[in-house]
Amino acid sequence: MPSLVDLVLHGASELLTLGRGAVPRRKEALRDLGSIRGGALAAEGGKVVDVGTTEEIRDRFRGRQEIDACGKTVLPAFVDAHAHPCFAGDRAAEFEMRCAGASYEEVASRGGGILSTVAATRGASREELVRLTRRRLDRFLSLGTTLLEAKSGYGLSLQDEARSLEAIAEAAANHPVEVSPTFLGAHAVPPEFRSDRKGYMRLLVEGMLPEVARRRLAESCDVFLEKGAFDREEARAILERARGLGLRLRVHADQLSSGGGAELACELGADSADHLEFVSDRGIEALGGSDTVAVLLPGVPVFLRKDRDAPARRLIEAGAAVALATDFNPGSCYCPSMAEVLAFARLRLGMTAAEAISAATVNAAFALRRPDRGRLAPGCRADLVVCDVPGPLALGSGLGASPVETVAAGGKVVARA
Amino acid sequence: MPSLVDLVLHGASELLTLGRGAVPRRKEALRDLGSIRGGALAAEGGKVVDVGTTEEIRDRFRGRQEIDACGKTVLPAFVDAHAHPCFAGDRAAEFEMRCAGASYEEVASRGGGILSTVAATRGASREELVRLTRRRLDRFLSLGTTLLEAKSGYGLSLQDEARSLEAIAEAAANHPVEVSPTFLGAHAVPPEFRSDRKGYMRLLVEGMLPEVARRRLAESCDVFLEKGAFDREEARAILERARGLGLRLRVHADQLSSGGGAELACELGADSADHLEFVSDRGIEALGGSDTVAVLLPGVPVFLRKDRDAPARRLIEAGAAVALATDFNPGSCYCPSMAEVLAFARLRLGMTAAEAISAATVNAAFALRRPDRGRLAPGCRADLVVCDVPGPLALGSGLGASPVETVAAGGKVVARA
Repeated sequence: MPSLVDLVLHGASELLTLGRGAVPRRKEALRDLGSIRGGALAAEGGKVVDVGTTEEIRDRFRGRQEIDACGKTVLPAFVDAHAHPCFAGDRAAEFEMRCAGASYEEVASRGGGILSTVAATRGASREELVRLTRRRLDRFLSLGTTLLEAKSGYGLSLQDEARSLEAIAEAAANHPVEVSPTFLGAHAVPPEFRSDRKGYMRLLVEGMLPEVARRRLAESCDVFLEKGAFDREEARAILERARGLGLRLRVHADQLSSGGGAELACELGADSADHLEFVSDRGIEALGGSDTVAVLLPGVPVFLRKDRDAPARRLIEAGAAVALATDFNPGSCYCPSMAEVLAFARLRLGMTAAEAISAATVNAAFALRRPDRGRLAPGCRADLVVCDVPGPLALGSGLGASPVETVAAGGKVVARA
Repeated sequence: MPSLVDLVLHGASELLTLGRGAVPRRKEALRDLGSIRGGALAAEGGKVVDVGTTEEIRDRFRGRQEIDACGKTVLPAFVDAHAHPCFAGDRAAEFEMRCAGASYEEVASRGGGILSTVAATRGASREELVRLTRRRLDRFLSLGTTLLEAKSGYGLSLQDEARSLEAIAEAAANHPVEVSPTFLGAHAVPPEFRSDRKGYMRLLVEGMLPEVARRRLAESCDVFLEKGAFDREEARAILERARGLGLRLRVHADQLSSGGGAELACELGADSADHLEFVSDRGIEALGGSDTVAVLLPGVPVFLRKDRDAPARRLIEAGAAVALATDFNPGSCYCPSMAEVLAFARLRLGMTAAEAISAATVNAAFALRRPDRGRLAPGCRADLVVCDVPGPLALGSGLGASPVETVAAGGKVVARA
């Protein structure tokens, strides 16, 4: 007699469980999707209770809700481990300038770039930031993402950074997308400190970080380590202080130039080093020997019209734990779709379909240190996507249109295309 | 007293009419979107009857159906002037091979590529082809395209080409997306004629073309003029015969190598020369002086991992009528979204937002010789999209997610995101 559970999904042409083996996935293990042909899944109380073939699961369970996934591919919902979803305004005029030939760095040096979004975000009410962020969470959800890292970094004052982090928490309250909030006060030096970098460093280290930690506004602290942003010693000072206050660490590393960001991230035990287009040989080696995840953002060079991509194959060969993310933000990658990121990872980084899928699920969850996400194994949260493709090779084999048809979070269907 | 009409749309932050000036748009005229701030539109009997400010239109009309476009940008529905929507099977395994380093040409020379889709399409029933094509039309519609060129070319026998064209017609019957069918028997030489090119040329010219024309299965005839496909003299023979039978002409020109395709298209008075990544200086000059539209497909090099893009800026400067299209097909561009194509046109071709919008609407309609499409002027068909962006600069400024919220065709709302 089958047990009655909240959800039974059945008939998937392939159910990609990502359930076997050590976490994070490295090297060949990235290609092991734990696929079950004719797969099915049962969920109860928000968690996966069993996976197997459709016959096996049907013998054991009946669902209060059932999903017929016949002919479709089912996988863990996407985890997006690097995103900036809380901002006001847009950068459409800057996009037009860049397409006419201006570089991202030129736009920034002319007072555009991040600082133009800072001005718009400072000028928006908290309610407006909540509304804008919540609409974006809706969009992420419809595209199959149910766990999202969410950075501040467009406030750059104690009050404005706190307001962004509060807006992120309020937008995510009772929303199917869970957020992992990150404090990114070290995104840029704000205009009022242009001639007083040390003053802004003091504010970050002595003012903002203790307040963010005390009020538990963020899980992690991130630094944009880059020419024109923060240098390695500044980054070290900020991250060491953050670690001392109990925050976890992330680093925007080696995006536009080689700055030793990957090495620093590994040295400090950061959860992730992100971007890595210009990572050094020593940085690759360091990532290969650590639990600091290499979070690759292959939509960014497309959006910034740059030729240089992160050396994904070398990172994988070195044994790094590679993850993928959107870097969703208004200036350097206005793309909320992890399926699109899978396509760019395949086309531009030379990752296989299986590697890209592991990187967008189980390894991305590890980058956020959420061991119950990104896999469909008993005890994991029942967050999954049903995609209108026959198998994993077709995921990320198209552009501009999402394959995600149905999204479940915590064992409940929360979005349908 | 306002008149009662089928549809009133009001309150658009910008209504892009594309209504002024000569068709096709060339040079500076490509940038004239005929924008009305606070714009509104009235439609009756499937056609636009008036456009103006919201106040003007509200004074004159009431709608049986009303669309509130407050804060949104409204423009003519997209016209996709180059697509291959009728096929069976997929090319996901080939995509994986290409991402591992194999070129499109290598894949084709190993019996993959177009011929693998020919095998799958020949093996599918007519009903299956109708079902697959109709599902794709649904997807195009949800992404804002209401007029679609639809090529055969995966049959390559009299019977199989006719079956594809019949399936296209049946899929489009009573569908909001109108199709413009094109006969592309000259897509590749099929395997059974591998050692008898002349035999296939005879079949094309003496067998298929007269039958396609007699049964009015297509409006146009296209040829893939390329190394490994058909050479210039073969293309000329096919196109001259097609023209003699009353078919309109299109050419796959200068995509992977410089083959004189643009010059031939202009010489024969073709409606379009498509691709043009390797167009010669003489080809650019010829297009600048003709009504043969330069249909650019900027998603294709992204999908094929190629660096070379069509010289859009030189074509525009030379006075060519430039249009944009997806080239939707399973092998070289699995992308049905014209919004994504706008983004690639801006990022890769350096087109401005306004140029790209004109190229995706009014000029694309001209490429299919549909003068009542691609503009929102009195007498034109009331096909429009409501996009969740504040103005034209934001169209095509993101990737992977469609800005299209509402689609109307013939004055009726036919899709909502």
